[in-house]
Amino acid sequence: MGRRPSGRVTVRQVAAASGYSVGTVSRALSGHPAVAPATRDEVLALAARLGAPVPARASAASGRDPGAPVLVRCPYVLDDYFGRVVTAAVESLAVHGRRAVLDTGEAARERPVVAGLAGDRGLAGAVLVLPPEPVRQLEALRAGGFPFVVVDPMAALPADVPSVSSAHLTSARALTAHLLELGHRRIGVVGGPTEWLASRSRLAGHASALADAGLLPDPSLRRSVRPTADDGYAAACDLLDAPGPGGPPTAIVAFNDKVASGVLRAAAERGLAVPGDLAVTGFDDLDLARSTVPALTTARQPLEEMGRMAVSLLLRLVARQAVDALHVSLATELVVRGSTAPPPSSPK
Amino acid sequence: MGRRPSGRVTVRQVAAASGYSVGTVSRALSGHPAVAPATRDEVLALAARLGAPVPARASAASGRDPGAPVLVRCPYVLDDYFGRVVTAAVESLAVHGRRAVLDTGEAARERPVVAGLAGDRGLAGAVLVLPPEPVRQLEALRAGGFPFVVVDPMAALPADVPSVSSAHLTSARALTAHLLELGHRRIGVVGGPTEWLASRSRLAGHASALADAGLLPDPSLRRSVRPTADDGYAAACDLLDAPGPGGPPTAIVAFNDKVASGVLRAAAERGLAVPGDLAVTGFDDLDLARSTVPALTTARQPLEEMGRMAVSLLLRLVARQAVDALHVSLATELVVRGSTAPPPSSPK
Repeated sequence: MGRRPSGRVTVRQVAAASGYSVGTVSRALSGHPAVAPATRDEVLALAARLGAPVPARASAASGRDPGAPVLVRCPYVLDDYFGRVVTAAVESLAVHGRRAVLDTGEAARERPVVAGLAGDRGLAGAVLVLPPEPVRQLEALRAGGFPFVVVDPMAALPADVPSVSSAHLTSARALTAHLLELGHRRIGVVGGPTEWLASRSRLAGHASALADAGLLPDPSLRRSVRPTADDGYAAACDLLDAPGPGGPPTAIVAFNDKVASGVLRAAAERGLAVPGDLAVTGFDDLDLARSTVPALTTARQPLEEMGRMAVSLLLRLVARQAVDALHVSLATELVVRGSTAPPPSSPK
Repeated sequence: MGRRPSGRVTVRQVAAASGYSVGTVSRALSGHPAVAPATRDEVLALAARLGAPVPARASAASGRDPGAPVLVRCPYVLDDYFGRVVTAAVESLAVHGRRAVLDTGEAARERPVVAGLAGDRGLAGAVLVLPPEPVRQLEALRAGGFPFVVVDPMAALPADVPSVSSAHLTSARALTAHLLELGHRRIGVVGGPTEWLASRSRLAGHASALADAGLLPDPSLRRSVRPTADDGYAAACDLLDAPGPGGPPTAIVAFNDKVASGVLRAAAERGLAVPGDLAVTGFDDLDLARSTVPALTTARQPLEEMGRMAVSLLLRLVARQAVDALHVSLATELVVRGSTAPPPSSPK
């Protein structure tokens, strides 16, 4: 963060805003050991928020042990998806001789630990998987000098908050393009929660592929669900039983493999052959995608790579080494299997 | 551990076996602070192995901080199965205000951390999920006074090594009994690795149900595989394509839901309707069991309960409180869904 065109924020301004004396703010910014850690973190966070440059020395003096354990926070049940990200992160930490402190489970979402991390001297840093915390809380943590990396952000993050994600938009675009190439024109979407960045990015990718074919998304073909097989099943029943004016979809793009497995169940119940009567795509490429009948065409998310990349980025931040980029997006791969084929009577 | 009928093991005998002086052994057994922790642990382990009573005071003086974090070790990829056990354990630790240090991933199996735990002062105790370590290593750890609980032991454990598992034998017996009641007589088994206690217990439960119907297991109907969908698929192909003298099975009992999903795939490829032509059962009751077509009849393992019970047992051990039982086995539940029905032409 450099000087603003409007002039540098002064120590006096930070002092006025913080309620601390100019001397305290000055000592906090210079990393003076006489300043209590909590006070220093508060001043640094405020200074950063006001746009003042925070000297590296100040956070270096935070008293945090750089060899301490790293927090891995994943406030969801560790399943085939989250479990793989966390496993890879913990394995990678072990390779670097680091212990991982794990915070996980649905109940973890209720515990506001993230806000308290800046003052936690027992942790070297944190990997935050799909953090449900508001962006401003992550910004404050960053401003406070606590090293952390976000994996798969739930909302768009400012440029200085480090993150690793996968290329949602590009992948979703590739899946829809694949269906368009096969001749599909009425493509249903069973998307994820609209407040998730991943859901919105994938919808944007879908629209982008449609646009190339001269089509606009048809809102009557779209549903948003929680990412479970049961929710996918219910949404697919709805799309197939109550089609819009243009008729039922000949293909359904599901938010992920679990949702797609629910779509397959809805199709089977209705006597629809997949892919003959209905093409279906997933996302993630979990083991599940290979064991459904038929196996799923999907986009392989680099889950292990995301976990490893987050640790690698974090340990550079902890060691105050230069990082190549703070926002890293990893490529996915289109995996074509048996669940996609041309529509019954292709308009092509 | 009380006195042996053959007479109490003396300090002198422990000293002779250990190579330490009688004074050192005596001080180690009495928890004297002048004895180095590593020496004390070695003496305590040896004394316990020789059958000498180890005074609680000795392990209490181990210098271990009872408020320290707890290690959760699960040396496998955290998937829908292991991830749920670990999530529940970590959530439960959080409820008790404890931090969890996680060691996980395939690579963790290569790191011999368990042997070093007795000397680790930074951990209050450990939950070891399906530990691949030999039983004698777990015995030595127990003898050394390090508090830990095994979840789902891989082999039979001695009575004084605390463990939580699910009722494998009873559950497998219930699944086979269910198939026998439907009229099946040729029941194939795609079991797990034979070196696992769970696999052997489930085979025993299967044989027990068969015996009630006056039948013996037919070795030509049995395969042992790694617990994956792909391995289940291959074994099912084998059972269905190369039947023994009695003909192909009309039902297949799979080691778990993943293996069962592979069996379903093999059946679908061969045009066999499930359950009309072939009945299939799983084990675990993962989300997967509800999303296959048809949904799986299975035995629900209490994965969350196992994680929570292990933590509860461990924290009592850490606090030196009395525990009701050191070996806890939790009940499973037979869940009947669409994958089982009477055989095509029931001999009943």
